[in-house]
Amino acid sequence: MMSNNRLEQIIAGVAPLDKRSIEEAARHLDQLTKPPGSLGRLEEVAKQLAGIRGEPIPDLGKKAVVVMAADHGVCEEGVSAYPAEVTPQMVLNFLNGGAAVNVLSRHAGADVLCVDIGVNAELSDSRLRSHKIRMGTANMAKGPAMTREEAEEAVLVGAEIAAELVRDGYGLIATGDMGIGNTTASSAILTVLGGTDAAEAAGRGTGIDEERLRHKQAVIRQAIELNRPDAADPMDVLSKVGGLEIAGLAGVILGAAKHRCPVVIDGFISSAAALVAARLAPLSVRYMIASHLSQEQGHARLLEEIGLIPMLVMDMRLGEGTGAVLAFPLIEAAVKIMKEMATFANAGVSGALPAEQLQG
Amino acid sequence: MMSNNRLEQIIAGVAPLDKRSIEEAARHLDQLTKPPGSLGRLEEVAKQLAGIRGEPIPDLGKKAVVVMAADHGVCEEGVSAYPAEVTPQMVLNFLNGGAAVNVLSRHAGADVLCVDIGVNAELSDSRLRSHKIRMGTANMAKGPAMTREEAEEAVLVGAEIAAELVRDGYGLIATGDMGIGNTTASSAILTVLGGTDAAEAAGRGTGIDEERLRHKQAVIRQAIELNRPDAADPMDVLSKVGGLEIAGLAGVILGAAKHRCPVVIDGFISSAAALVAARLAPLSVRYMIASHLSQEQGHARLLEEIGLIPMLVMDMRLGEGTGAVLAFPLIEAAVKIMKEMATFANAGVSGALPAEQLQG
Repeated sequence: MMSNNRLEQIIAGVAPLDKRSIEEAARHLDQLTKPPGSLGRLEEVAKQLAGIRGEPIPDLGKKAVVVMAADHGVCEEGVSAYPAEVTPQMVLNFLNGGAAVNVLSRHAGADVLCVDIGVNAELSDSRLRSHKIRMGTANMAKGPAMTREEAEEAVLVGAEIAAELVRDGYGLIATGDMGIGNTTASSAILTVLGGTDAAEAAGRGTGIDEERLRHKQAVIRQAIELNRPDAADPMDVLSKVGGLEIAGLAGVILGAAKHRCPVVIDGFISSAAALVAARLAPLSVRYMIASHLSQEQGHARLLEEIGLIPMLVMDMRLGEGTGAVLAFPLIEAAVKIMKEMATFANAGVSGALPAEQLQG
Repeated sequence: MMSNNRLEQIIAGVAPLDKRSIEEAARHLDQLTKPPGSLGRLEEVAKQLAGIRGEPIPDLGKKAVVVMAADHGVCEEGVSAYPAEVTPQMVLNFLNGGAAVNVLSRHAGADVLCVDIGVNAELSDSRLRSHKIRMGTANMAKGPAMTREEAEEAVLVGAEIAAELVRDGYGLIATGDMGIGNTTASSAILTVLGGTDAAEAAGRGTGIDEERLRHKQAVIRQAIELNRPDAADPMDVLSKVGGLEIAGLAGVILGAAKHRCPVVIDGFISSAAALVAARLAPLSVRYMIASHLSQEQGHARLLEEIGLIPMLVMDMRLGEGTGAVLAFPLIEAAVKIMKEMATFANAGVSGALPAEQLQG
């Protein structure tokens, strides 16, 4: 199948990080005027960026957050606190620059690229990237959310957007989402790929009460029982209980990894996409930087499943890429540490004492 | 006593936050296009800033980190991995812009103000603020680190610097430290004021091994047994087992609070200063914003004791104010959210559904 071939090429194109650049970065870090390792995650990120870009002190270039928007048929089941029409309304808000992700992206000096990959409304606006695969997913509680071909097509849309961004000089890409109902789909993905129970994987999303939460968990269990997604086949899981924006973001991650570009993972929805990407191409995890720990219940478990550790704990639960763009300055700080800090030698600062001189 | 009077005036001048501005900020936040509370800590910080400044959307103005440097007589006991001469060497590094805090401050658009409040070396440099109280503390394992008058003078130096910064248009102040041996003093403060054991309070600092760590803990116990600091009298604790930079930073915090300026707390040393400030003036805690959770063992306990929750978890353990300036963009983001986000009404976005419409 054509789309399958293209997807396989992308997956096969995700290569290991460059060890020599990581080692060079590590050596440089240990010459800087600070105790070894004392800048913690900043040092880890600096080494990771070196390995990704294949040079010890890379220039990141422009920054962008890709916000993928889509609707979810499962909203029929009453799983969200907000009506489905909020998805297209928020897309307009993104285009007009009024949403949280716009504010935080301007603050971070990043561009917002908004993509309609499956919003259930006719949207025509020149500022919107239109790659609508279908008018939202079908209700997973009654059948598969989409076909395998649709899910693959959505992944390819995301991968192509990442490739374009890299060609256009972007060197730091964040993932963002909009889609009423998408914590239900993300929880379903975590339930299947993480082998957890829906009660652990599903949380309150935009703010549902206890009764509604139990209903949401029941809907997820029903969708899994009905569709029987195969945990060993990430595309099967993505198509049967996932979402179009989740598929698109998995594609952004894979495309960024293929083009050796660091990709910053936002909260719960983005992490569900990252888990799918990690299962499709395990090496893609090396290109991911986790931004924040969301307040959404299953997020810690989801990050653990991928093997990512967040830098920010802000109790946020908004999505859109808001947590990811908040982490942009941290990632840039890692590069500046490499570029601008003095070494022990050129600052005339003494190194650590040998053990025998430590005696009191 | 003169200095005591001045100190008492500062402490008495720390007022509660402005409730009306907090309520106005909260109302505004709930009109913005996001589920209520979904920006988590950003919303908390926005409300706190409103209450501090007495207006719902304050302008923060210029930003600075005050790096207080001093030496510690207890270094004689072999408690640090680095020789004491690193303190003056690092002061020069700060003045030349080569240290981590300089790099991160430039990144955040903040100024670095370096203060010699007790470095054990003659330093004359026009770029350095000279307020040397004495040439480092005495060895607390053999007697009090300093006199009560010296500790009070150091607190007043810090408070005066904060007052000056506010007069000069700074609206966001971070605390930073430099002083070989100062995790030992900070651990001693936590041990006494937190009622913990030295084994819980003391960690590896710049990187000592297990044996040296046990020695450091023994030195702390010895200093406490010998000097018998009174846990109910923070100035007694500060003078007997504290440090000059810790006293100076406690003063910066109290001065910032008195002048209704938010103050961002860095890692372990700054938090020890914050605990002293909190005990001297409990309302000062409302003016503090915790930045990061340090990798230093006692930091979580120390923050808990003050009642602060950090935003960043970066496994850092450098001090200097590095974690605090990394948090500056997060705090500015909170203000921009208030200023720039669209409301549900002006963006035409639907609010949450009433419960009865949530039925599937």
